[in-house]
Amino acid sequence: MAKAVVLLSGGLDSTTTLAWAKAQGYELYAISFQYGQRHNIELKKAREIAANIGVIEHKIVPIDLRLFGGSALTDDIDVPKNRDIESTEIPVTYVPARNTIFLSFALAYAEVIGSFDIFIGANVLDYSGYPDCRPEYLEAFEKMANLATAATVNTNEKFQIHAPLIQLSKAEIIKLGLGLNVDYSSTLSCYDPAVNGQPCGSCDSCQLRNKGFAENDMADPAIKL
Amino acid sequence: MAKAVVLLSGGLDSTTTLAWAKAQGYELYAISFQYGQRHNIELKKAREIAANIGVIEHKIVPIDLRLFGGSALTDDIDVPKNRDIESTEIPVTYVPARNTIFLSFALAYAEVIGSFDIFIGANVLDYSGYPDCRPEYLEAFEKMANLATAATVNTNEKFQIHAPLIQLSKAEIIKLGLGLNVDYSSTLSCYDPAVNGQPCGSCDSCQLRNKGFAENDMADPAIKL
Repeated sequence: MAKAVVLLSGGLDSTTTLAWAKAQGYELYAISFQYGQRHNIELKKAREIAANIGVIEHKIVPIDLRLFGGSALTDDIDVPKNRDIESTEIPVTYVPARNTIFLSFALAYAEVIGSFDIFIGANVLDYSGYPDCRPEYLEAFEKMANLATAATVNTNEKFQIHAPLIQLSKAEIIKLGLGLNVDYSSTLSCYDPAVNGQPCGSCDSCQLRNKGFAENDMADPAIKL
Repeated sequence: MAKAVVLLSGGLDSTTTLAWAKAQGYELYAISFQYGQRHNIELKKAREIAANIGVIEHKIVPIDLRLFGGSALTDDIDVPKNRDIESTEIPVTYVPARNTIFLSFALAYAEVIGSFDIFIGANVLDYSGYPDCRPEYLEAFEKMANLATAATVNTNEKFQIHAPLIQLSKAEIIKLGLGLNVDYSSTLSCYDPAVNGQPCGSCDSCQLRNKGFAENDMADPAIKL
């Protein structure tokens, strides 16, 4: 059985990606990051999800991106509310080089466990315009990864960065996940949740999520009334 | 004045690179990693060197690569002594994806401070065959970096990964550094130093360093008799 390293934030996209990798027959190794994010509660969700979906191992890597700051998620900058999510401007919730750092750790993890398949829930339709979610970025990362490690020098294998959601809308992602029996009640997408984990409802991530569930004519199962 | 982010391990190569970037007229921002390396004492050296050469800021980033292990530098694996340094086999001192992780953090740091110039002391002549020191790897990282960030979307600038030592032998690196007034007595290259910082003399890194000083007909100024 091939091993998959899956980036798992505890949000809707990465949870769907984890379920998708499982459905493809991979043995699952999840990796999450405690990076100083204001929505640190997502890690609690990630742990629940990893246990529910069934992973061999779940690494939670502490790295403090507050050392650099420069983002509303890691610094004293307000998370924008009710922003126009059609805007092409990169919002202040962008975290400098975050996916590059996350994928680099995933690469180290993959190399050590003998995996060549790294999964990320990036998507470019209903998203916030983050540059490190674009297909051309992921392709460039994959090329770099294939020159970076002893694993590809010592074998004939190549690393693949899998982004199965890359061209799906949020509504399509949810539909895919429902078909894979994903329990979205454990997922958290909000950038600025209340202490009890309830989503704010108006950050970019909440807006995109709400739109996705609305287009599936259903209520968000994570919202407790 | 352009800002340079310089990876600084406290070794001979990165110290020479820092001095080289200074001589090119850059404002210096050094970055080092406390990654669970057995030769943790190199960070003390890095601090001294950063202060002596004169940097605007020196970030020391804690990341624990012992989480993954898989290397003699981060795991319970002996550091090879008196190994044939002409061997083409990648030695167990290779740390999975280390330069990719280090450069990713350097990219985040650069983006936040508005720098587009990242310096690394990688070289491919007198080295241990690490895949993430090869020019083709560094070129691929640079391409990826230029798709990864908001900085290149929002400006016309491009990131450059500078590896000024890439084609120099260890002897040539030392010669270059001496011409730049580098004080090599503060540098530490050994993978397995004694508690007081004295080098073991027989790991790959010591062998390469000793060869470099011998070819310059001089004693290693870091060795206290």
